[in-house]
Amino acid sequence: MMNKTTQLYEGKAKKVFLTDDSDLVIQEFKDDATAFNNKKKGSIADKGVVNNAISCKLFTLLEENGIRTHLVEKLSEREMLCRYLDIIKVEVVVRNIAAGSLVKRYGFAEGTLLEQPIVELYLKNDDLDDPLMNDAHAVALGVATYEEIAVLKNRAEAINLVLRRFFADRKLKLVDFKLEFGRNKGTILLGDEISPDTCRLWDLDTNEKLDKDRFRFDLGGVEDAYSEVQRRVLDLD
Amino acid sequence: MMNKTTQLYEGKAKKVFLTDDSDLVIQEFKDDATAFNNKKKGSIADKGVVNNAISCKLFTLLEENGIRTHLVEKLSEREMLCRYLDIIKVEVVVRNIAAGSLVKRYGFAEGTLLEQPIVELYLKNDDLDDPLMNDAHAVALGVATYEEIAVLKNRAEAINLVLRRFFADRKLKLVDFKLEFGRNKGTILLGDEISPDTCRLWDLDTNEKLDKDRFRFDLGGVEDAYSEVQRRVLDLD
Ligand SMILES: Nc1ncnc2c1ncn2[C@@H]1O[C@H](COP(=O)(O)OP(=O)(O)OP(=O)(O)O)[C@@H](O)[C@H]1O
Ligand SMILES: Nc1ncnc2c1ncn2[C@@H]1O[C@H](COP(=O)(O)OP(=O)(O)OP(=O)(O)O)[C@@H](O)[C@H]1O
Ligand SMILES: [Mg+2]
Ligand SMILES: [Mg+2]
Repeated sequence: MMNKTTQLYEGKAKKVFLTDDSDLVIQEFKDDATAFNNKKKGSIADKGVVNNAISCKLFTLLEENGIRTHLVEKLSEREMLCRYLDIIKVEVVVRNIAAGSLVKRYGFAEGTLLEQPIVELYLKNDDLDDPLMNDAHAVALGVATYEEIAVLKNRAEAINLVLRRFFADRKLKLVDFKLEFGRNKGTILLGDEISPDTCRLWDLDTNEKLDKDRFRFDLGGVEDAYSEVQRRVLDLD
Repeated sequence: MMNKTTQLYEGKAKKVFLTDDSDLVIQEFKDDATAFNNKKKGSIADKGVVNNAISCKLFTLLEENGIRTHLVEKLSEREMLCRYLDIIKVEVVVRNIAAGSLVKRYGFAEGTLLEQPIVELYLKNDDLDDPLMNDAHAVALGVATYEEIAVLKNRAEAINLVLRRFFADRKLKLVDFKLEFGRNKGTILLGDEISPDTCRLWDLDTNEKLDKDRFRFDLGGVEDAYSEVQRRVLDLD
């Protein structure tokens, strides 16, 4: 058994605990939900349980496809045992279909299929509102080297290919998603979570939104959307 | 003599006229000044004369250094004869020292010397407030190809090296500047202008701002700053 020792961090969606093994941490998934950098707050019943289940399944899928992640094992309903990462302060976003800030910032029509996926880098800094940046900014800010940035982008594109096919088989469009990576013993591993909190997922036939946008924009049926994604991802049908 | 025919465009700082030769246009420099995407408006006495003189000198310098520009010749105090360009809707910004949006967006301390110059791309679209973008955005928006983006960045870095040295010899720090490029008969040429409207220039010894920031932030002495830059650039001492 792995014991939680001190709490390392309490974030908006998860707590992170140290363990007796300095290489391992436990992510505990909460039901708290926030949007627009904390300006909207609420809670989504059982979100922690659902997101932990989905994340563990997707990280396992990625590992099976040769992509290394921090996942060690699912410990309990809300707990994921992970390798400790020195988190790279970059949020890597991959977009297949225009939505969200791509619509607002550049005037793309929502739903436009992009010919090539777009990979974006955001500085992970709540005080600055996670600004968009380019490779040179990331290096000048000291958050990553050019070599690391190249790895992140390459890894993000590989992850996109695996996830897009997996979701398509489950009648879900992977519109866009956010990834975090970190350093562990000289290697870069995928960290954090992949869930309806961090992905836009639309029903393949109806384009119904089955993700955090239901919470962001008060569309209702938030819990149902999260559990429908869980059902499709975990083949609980 | 080259005759202006129809006006092609009236912008914030210049008018552009067609001529009898379909390959040539005339840029006419105005005294109008705007900032913050037109939210602040005013006028700077003789700015058009000064900016035309400075731009013609700097474009000539660049040509002497093997960098192709749209400049054909200075026609009059306010008029520059140029090759017609199919303008690429990308504003290319090069930064040597942190100022402006680098300070506001990423929290750099103003005046920080960057280890490497940072090249940024902005979508040239006033309605969208010229948003920052990356290479993939530019391509997805259809404003340029990956090959063209590579040329723009490379050219911008080469221009930076020439200009930085030229300004340093005149006791000016080239903090940052904005460039526009366009297509002419299968080649990419530097277009638009290079002037205190489009550069941040600080006195080498005192760091006094000698550029449009004096207008933007009501620092006074706007006309004096522009003519001081003209004096140093044109060696009128
Ligand atoms: N394997 C790991 N080792 C250490 N930290 C991790 C690991 N995986 C994820 N983290 C970090 O743990 C935190 C998870 O908490 P949560 O996602 O709730 O944060 P948050 O409130 O979203 O804030 P943030 O904007 O920092 O993500 C994040 O800061 C994430 O970067
Ligand atoms: N050689 C050229 N051929 C055609 N158009 C040019 C050429 N050089 C510059 N231009 C364009 O002419 C216009 C110059 O006007 P001005 O700089 O006043 O525009 P502006 O108000 O700043 O608007 P913008 O935001 O489009 O620059 C710009 O749109 C610029 O892109
Ligand atoms: Mg998070
Ligand atoms: Mg202009």
